[in-house]
Amino acid sequence: MNDETLMERAVAAAKQAGAATWRNPQVGAVVVKNGHVLATGHTQPYGGSHAERDALSRLAPGQAAGATLYVTLEPCNHYGKQPPCTQLIINSGIRRVVVAQLDPHALVTGKGVANLRQHGIEVVTGVGAQQAAQVNPHYDFFYRHHRPWVTLKQALSLDGRVSAGPGQRTAITNQAVYRRVHQERAGFQGIVIGSTTAIVDDPTLLPSVQLAHLPIRIVLDRRGRLADYPDLRLFNDGLAPTWVFTENAALPDRLGPWARVLVLPDCSVPAVVQVLAEEGVQSLYVEGGPTIQNAFARAGLVEEVLTYLSPVMLGQEGVPGFAPPETWKFQDQQLELLGNNVRIAERERQDV
Amino acid sequence: MNDETLMERAVAAAKQAGAATWRNPQVGAVVVKNGHVLATGHTQPYGGSHAERDALSRLAPGQAAGATLYVTLEPCNHYGKQPPCTQLIINSGIRRVVVAQLDPHALVTGKGVANLRQHGIEVVTGVGAQQAAQVNPHYDFFYRHHRPWVTLKQALSLDGRVSAGPGQRTAITNQAVYRRVHQERAGFQGIVIGSTTAIVDDPTLLPSVQLAHLPIRIVLDRRGRLADYPDLRLFNDGLAPTWVFTENAALPDRLGPWARVLVLPDCSVPAVVQVLAEEGVQSLYVEGGPTIQNAFARAGLVEEVLTYLSPVMLGQEGVPGFAPPETWKFQDQQLELLGNNVRIAERERQDV
Repeated sequence: MNDETLMERAVAAAKQAGAATWRNPQVGAVVVKNGHVLATGHTQPYGGSHAERDALSRLAPGQAAGATLYVTLEPCNHYGKQPPCTQLIINSGIRRVVVAQLDPHALVTGKGVANLRQHGIEVVTGVGAQQAAQVNPHYDFFYRHHRPWVTLKQALSLDGRVSAGPGQRTAITNQAVYRRVHQERAGFQGIVIGSTTAIVDDPTLLPSVQLAHLPIRIVLDRRGRLADYPDLRLFNDGLAPTWVFTENAALPDRLGPWARVLVLPDCSVPAVVQVLAEEGVQSLYVEGGPTIQNAFARAGLVEEVLTYLSPVMLGQEGVPGFAPPETWKFQDQQLELLGNNVRIAERERQDV
Repeated sequence: MNDETLMERAVAAAKQAGAATWRNPQVGAVVVKNGHVLATGHTQPYGGSHAERDALSRLAPGQAAGATLYVTLEPCNHYGKQPPCTQLIINSGIRRVVVAQLDPHALVTGKGVANLRQHGIEVVTGVGAQQAAQVNPHYDFFYRHHRPWVTLKQALSLDGRVSAGPGQRTAITNQAVYRRVHQERAGFQGIVIGSTTAIVDDPTLLPSVQLAHLPIRIVLDRRGRLADYPDLRLFNDGLAPTWVFTENAALPDRLGPWARVLVLPDCSVPAVVQVLAEEGVQSLYVEGGPTIQNAFARAGLVEEVLTYLSPVMLGQEGVPGFAPPETWKFQDQQLELLGNNVRIAERERQDV
């Protein structure tokens, strides 16, 4: 087996890590000696072992001496929740490390590789980099751009409406979409809605997957309309954190102890995103409605659009969905039929 | 083989007939004797043999005596372009006729079956009726409702726009859609557009299939704006009939000899459809734009909506597509991926 094939196994291991790694990237590691795979590992749930430690922990002392380590992301070189993986690798006697992707995190980039080389370990980088980059798009984006990755998600009728009329809750998409959306939420660190959606739908915005770190439910309520709706489930179920952004200084006293209310002098989308970036929130799933989504689009803060389309037509009285300020085309489009609905995922906008 | 299985073969034969039958229904026939299929036939191009005659013409004189005939539509009992098939069947010595569907045509319904029975032939009806009904939806609809079947066809962006701005021609869908639409036109007897589409797109509206009877290109131009556009290809290419409906009595003198201009005192969609019904036009493919499609929807004259969706977003300045006056749901929805576009065909609206 060559380096590429073994890195594919490391990438597959990385994908096993799943959303439980939360703010840590999902990484895979494979230890190989004399053409045999000795151990495979991946990042453990947030606060637990990194992939390298997970793989090496499966070996007897000294067993890794002279081996090659395949790892999808550059080994960390600093103390975080865990001691640095570079030290562990050096101590293990590994002679060669093959890395797919350098860590985009400014604290780490290149330092891990440099430290290994200083200790006489041969390091190869860039093997399988493209496949590895697909595992952690949110993490990579966050550390490259210093703001959360934003996915707009909409449920849309064929005539481009999101509800049958203002203030109406309209079930548009089918059960398969319902299940997919609930799974999908687990892959984001924040779920964003506007106050109208909060009031009209009274949603819980929970994923279907049980996680130690659930996505933060974030409501944008510039004027503080939610002061009149303290009984919404978001403010009372205690099932996940709820943050409310507002310009209304009176709001914190009205919403009870479960909600964290952040009063900003300017509660525009860019200002909110700035605060969320500082809080370390790497990804946002913006569920609506169109007013909020249009604001993200106008601010140029959209990395992905996920549309769940149902071939119903809601008619002239329906509320139009989000539309960007100018024409948007995408290089990466994935279409998938879900029964009589369509899932359309679009990334990598190209300017036209 | 039982009656159902043999009727399936007749239905398959019917589908071979294709669009060349034009105003005649596509019918299939199978002659069976002593458990053996002696001959199969289908409707020939308009003006040619019906299915029964096509099948029986393949047999030697007297060979059909005592046989059973499977035919997807009730045999005709009147002189049209061809002598009645009932007489042919009686003369052939066939002893039993199995019919899928009675003819919806008021001139024929039940009379063919009655005549056969009067001549001592055993007739069974309704075998495979559901499959047979799918072969000629436009013909059946036309003779049941005395007006053309109407399909609205739209090319739509994901944000529900049909062009990037008023008066702009915008290519939205991909090459696979282009090919499908050109094939699809051959299955309709009229292609309808409004004057704006005629002026902005200067289309030819031809199908990709060569046919003796091409769909009539129909332009709705109430005010007579086309008087200023006599050079449009529709009025000069001579490749298919072009009919223009208007209230403007000056229009006929402005458009040259190729166009047939019909001046109506009231050029509303219901009035135009009424004239087309009297002209024997069984089906319309309404290609746009949204103003015309909205008028068909308001008039309650839509049997099918075909949407070709492309995941581009044309933005806030784009022209919104058709939307019905109230919520429309459909019982029959067919979704198909065409590369990165989606074809959505919807029929059988249910009132909600």
